[in-house]
Amino acid sequence: MNGKLTIALDAMGGDSGPDVVIAAALSILRQRDDVRLLLVGDQQRLNAMVASAGRATENLEIRHASQQVEMGEMPSQALRFKKDSSMRVAINLVKEEQAQACVSAGNTGALMATARYVLKTLPGIDRPAIITSIPSIEGHTWMLDLGANVDCSADHLFQFAVMGSVLATAADGVERPRVGLINIGEEEIKGNDQVKEAARLLGGSSLNYIGFVEGDDVYKGGVDVAVCDGFVGNVALKTSEGVAKMVTHYMKREFSRNLLTRAAGAVALPVLNAFRRRIDPRRYNGASLLGLRGIVIKSHGGADAVAFANAIEVAILEAQKALPERIDNKLEALLTERQAV
Amino acid sequence: MNGKLTIALDAMGGDSGPDVVIAAALSILRQRDDVRLLLVGDQQRLNAMVASAGRATENLEIRHASQQVEMGEMPSQALRFKKDSSMRVAINLVKEEQAQACVSAGNTGALMATARYVLKTLPGIDRPAIITSIPSIEGHTWMLDLGANVDCSADHLFQFAVMGSVLATAADGVERPRVGLINIGEEEIKGNDQVKEAARLLGGSSLNYIGFVEGDDVYKGGVDVAVCDGFVGNVALKTSEGVAKMVTHYMKREFSRNLLTRAAGAVALPVLNAFRRRIDPRRYNGASLLGLRGIVIKSHGGADAVAFANAIEVAILEAQKALPERIDNKLEALLTERQAV
Repeated sequence: MNGKLTIALDAMGGDSGPDVVIAAALSILRQRDDVRLLLVGDQQRLNAMVASAGRATENLEIRHASQQVEMGEMPSQALRFKKDSSMRVAINLVKEEQAQACVSAGNTGALMATARYVLKTLPGIDRPAIITSIPSIEGHTWMLDLGANVDCSADHLFQFAVMGSVLATAADGVERPRVGLINIGEEEIKGNDQVKEAARLLGGSSLNYIGFVEGDDVYKGGVDVAVCDGFVGNVALKTSEGVAKMVTHYMKREFSRNLLTRAAGAVALPVLNAFRRRIDPRRYNGASLLGLRGIVIKSHGGADAVAFANAIEVAILEAQKALPERIDNKLEALLTERQAV
Repeated sequence: MNGKLTIALDAMGGDSGPDVVIAAALSILRQRDDVRLLLVGDQQRLNAMVASAGRATENLEIRHASQQVEMGEMPSQALRFKKDSSMRVAINLVKEEQAQACVSAGNTGALMATARYVLKTLPGIDRPAIITSIPSIEGHTWMLDLGANVDCSADHLFQFAVMGSVLATAADGVERPRVGLINIGEEEIKGNDQVKEAARLLGGSSLNYIGFVEGDDVYKGGVDVAVCDGFVGNVALKTSEGVAKMVTHYMKREFSRNLLTRAAGAVALPVLNAFRRRIDPRRYNGASLLGLRGIVIKSHGGADAVAFANAIEVAILEAQKALPERIDNKLEALLTERQAV
């Protein structure tokens, strides 16, 4: 340690492998000299690639790992047979405090299972959750869980709310983030038992709980942290991607209909591009695995260098803010408060 | 009965009341003379409104109801104290076979509770479900349940699949609609027990079950009927609305940024309007309450006359196709097939 934050990067994960990770790492190091990046993977190959990129930098180091986890591999198999995978070694570096955070674009299930096995969950946290920020009309909304847990008890949802709240404070500087529970709007049949009980727990806590929110509130704004189980969160996120893609598809089709619409499209192009930059999913790449005794960031498997660099920035931010310690403290305070009632 | 299909319309439900319903009814009757519409509500008021619209038609009749269900009213209260509500009387007309279907823009919870109480579910159907078609890149996708049932067993999901499949065949003329179960894509932790068991039931049936689909597949196409529990479906649908609204918001903002972008917007306007018509939610208004011994269509509470007319068209189609009988027959055939194995 030389006063610099150190981030371990799983260089072999993701659909495009080391190319994207190295390009992202170099782009980060061009912009900041307060971090050190550890590229984890096949040493020979990485050495050659970094050399050919022609930018050896003292803040970039390579750490060898002889294996890699495949995208379709079962998490249990990865855990058992890939003890020297780039993913596992990157997480080990966090465990051994050689790095303050790690980033991987690999297999989500294997990353979750390995991180949980190696790092363990924080006291009072039963299950880690996946969180990311989503663009909204107001700015963005943090949403969790996005797929780590399919069945969640009220206590799990409460823990998610605490973790999301701490992250929103650390990342956005909002002192009392508005926490909402995702529910459905039909009268009487409102919500299942877990959601109703979680509402009771949150209502009785000192978190800034604003009540039930519906799916559209995530994009409308008015809520900083939207909490749901991983099945609901994952389907909602994927559905959103689907709508966005359909909109783009139809737009392109309308604008390419004839010469006149093509001309209109050309005129409108800069505006459409400005719009696309605003909701660019690459800006929102980098989901956090919260609730662990260490920082693990999941990049999208298909991330390009811009998107992967964004995931590294998320890791840096969480390391600077010592997020796991903050979650630990907040949860302890809230549980003490609950017992005192 | 004079050979014409008769549809009962709850004229007092929805945010805008009889204005919208009457305008929609008149627009339908201008286009077709094979249906009769029964406006249900305050007779005096409706008489005056129809008279002032200046288009008395032999195919439009008024049926009196002295009460109305409020939008925020508890379903149990409506069921107990509003026995002469426009909603209840419209459903009674279906029960008494004076109408082949009914349409209401009223309180969803009350509509579901009343329809279930008055009409009862079909044999073999435990719970009615809400279904609607959603625009996709291919055309559209039928999705259910959209909020009637928060916790669903594997058998419920199986029944939803049967109902959705029958509707897709009746509405689109697809002989073997592709049925998918909505699930999440994470490895190993894939799905909850109900979804896994439902997959087994569907896989063993003669339905055209294509396996798990993810949230984005609903918009991508490749699946005709997407099945999920009502909590997931409701959140996914609301989230989609949220994304679409956010996209519109940002588009407007980008185009109104300065004189140049305003000019671009003016040129692009016809194209953007064409696009909006294509994904116009009014075209997709009219969700069906499936699984009942009668046809009940829910219009969006905030529907305008175009949207409400679309809901009436959905009712006409389902009445023409005798949808409840078809569902009954299909379910019986599938359950017999299952026992035979």
